Amino acid sequence: MAIFETILIVGGGLIGSSIARAARKGAAAKTILMADKNPKVCEAISRLGIADDVSTHATDLALRADLVILCVPPGQMGGAAKDVIPAMRSGTILTDVGSVKEKIISAIAPVLGGVTFIPAHPIAGTEYSGPEAGFATLFEDKWCIITPQNSSAESEGNITSGPSDAADLVAQFWSAMGSNIAFMTPQRHDLVLATTSHVPHLIAYTLVGTAVDMEAVTQNEVVKFSAGGFRDFTRIAASDPVMWRDVFLDNSESVLEVVDRFIEDLSALKRAIRWKEGDILLEHFAKTRDIRTKIVDAGQDSAAANFGRKDS
Amino acid sequence: MAIFETILIVGGGLIGSSIARAARKGAAAKTILMADKNPKVCEAISRLGIADDVSTHATDLALRADLVILCVPPGQMGGAAKDVIPAMRSGTILTDVGSVKEKIISAIAPVLGGVTFIPAHPIAGTEYSGPEAGFATLFEDKWCIITPQNSSAESEGNITSGPSDAADLVAQFWSAMGSNIAFMTPQRHDLVLATTSHVPHLIAYTLVGTAVDMEAVTQNEVVKFSAGGFRDFTRIAASDPVMWRDVFLDNSESVLEVVDRFIEDLSALKRAIRWKEGDILLEHFAKTRDIRTKIVDAGQDSAAANFGRKDS
Repeated sequence: MAIFETILIVGGGLIGSSIARAARKGAAAKTILMADKNPKVCEAISRLGIADDVSTHATDLALRADLVILCVPPGQMGGAAKDVIPAMRSGTILTDVGSVKEKIISAIAPVLGGVTFIPAHPIAGTEYSGPEAGFATLFEDKWCIITPQNSSAESEGNITSGPSDAADLVAQFWSAMGSNIAFMTPQRHDLVLATTSHVPHLIAYTLVGTAVDMEAVTQNEVVKFSAGGFRDFTRIAASDPVMWRDVFLDNSESVLEVVDRFIEDLSALKRAIRWKEGDILLEHFAKTRDIRTKIVDAGQDSAAANFGRKDS
Repeated sequence: MAIFETILIVGGGLIGSSIARAARKGAAAKTILMADKNPKVCEAISRLGIADDVSTHATDLALRADLVILCVPPGQMGGAAKDVIPAMRSGTILTDVGSVKEKIISAIAPVLGGVTFIPAHPIAGTEYSGPEAGFATLFEDKWCIITPQNSSAESEGNITSGPSDAADLVAQFWSAMGSNIAFMTPQRHDLVLATTSHVPHLIAYTLVGTAVDMEAVTQNEVVKFSAGGFRDFTRIAASDPVMWRDVFLDNSESVLEVVDRFIEDLSALKRAIRWKEGDILLEHFAKTRDIRTKIVDAGQDSAAANFGRKDS
């Protein structure tokens, strides 16, 4: 049995198109509607056959939906909500997939009317964008963080105080997509994600930019010899520019806090290098190895968990 | 026909043990000797059966070798060379695998005696260490940079002026391991690698350390939600601490230059976030996407090159 009879996905990019594919595969919804303001994206969705109906106007489809999922960049969430909500049936559920929660909630809350908003964030993605880049297994074994506004969600990630029925339905929907569910306050989400995702992306974008400028000195050798570590940064820094601009602007407070700590720490290591304080470096590097072990143990890197001696 | 009759690998870690496996598989050498000061590493090498003879004293085996390859951390290269050279036959070739070239050359040059030193650096590795972590295909389709001291190697990476016979033999050896060969001056190597490898590692080590400190704030959620970008940094920051300490100390000049540029660039993006200058961010992020495309086009990321729609 499907969790929702009919869903409307607003925004047909990597995430939206992956939800459509996964919802069909996992039977999370019977009927899948999609909307995207860009006619070319709508054409691609039709061609790929991943939705039952598609339109450039979300309002044309919203009345039929039991769940509307906003899959647009963070900065466009407020506008998309304002546009679609008047066309939704009262009592139906609105959710989103934004990487930032506090700012999106404050943009959507004033325009809610009679619908119930359950903010969510599936922690999944690739460096590719657009409807062709999506795939049905994107969310499998990934976390989806749900930040219900009025529930007393515990920071521990347990549904101890019982989320609302609507939050529970959205959680069931993401479980059907293959995700693991965590509940959290929006504030906590934004600080945790600043550390695990936003600042790593900002740093990757920065370093790749620095290296591009170094190409003048190194004559394309940065590209040629990128396998030594740099390559991993370029993958992260190839992610959707518009989405990431919005993330940094909308979560600026937490991002700037973590960046400042990072710069302090980098300056300390820089000083140790300049003054040849090898012991300080060694101590730091040994410490960071431990957290890698924890991540592999926690099953958060399947590639590493599967690593064995490839050849003896 | 083998490139060398007998090789001696000094240091049985990830790189040394991978050379042993690859040399056997690719018939680059007939007889493979290995030495490691650590008796436990020697035991592991015997148990794995990857060498024909193994000793805790390189000097016991050096007389039999036509090529000696130093596979110890950069800071131990000078000492290892000083130790093994008196036991080598005059006219035979010494090479290394160090990630830094100028400092290693200046440490080894004074103790050379009658042997020929051809510095080399295979750009390959994993976050794992020790003899068990090695595998025969580690160097396949990876670059090996050779920095002969007295040749007029061009910075363009071509053997335009013809390297010496010894450099040519070392190049043939690495070709037999499956690597692509580039010739470069030691100075240029150190600047290029500071950009593509050393500074990315320093930044990854720093960020993971910053996140460890944030764990007090975020209660293990950094590990739990690491899939959003942070996880890739932890993989890089799990690399061998001793080797990386030596790399940063031995290539401090280039590393500090690139780090300073990076901090300037990060400060500029930080300022753009603080002042909500979205256009500056967007412009920067769009630029960094291009270099990713170049890297995939240059075949330097096979994982990405093989990426297709996993599911439609």
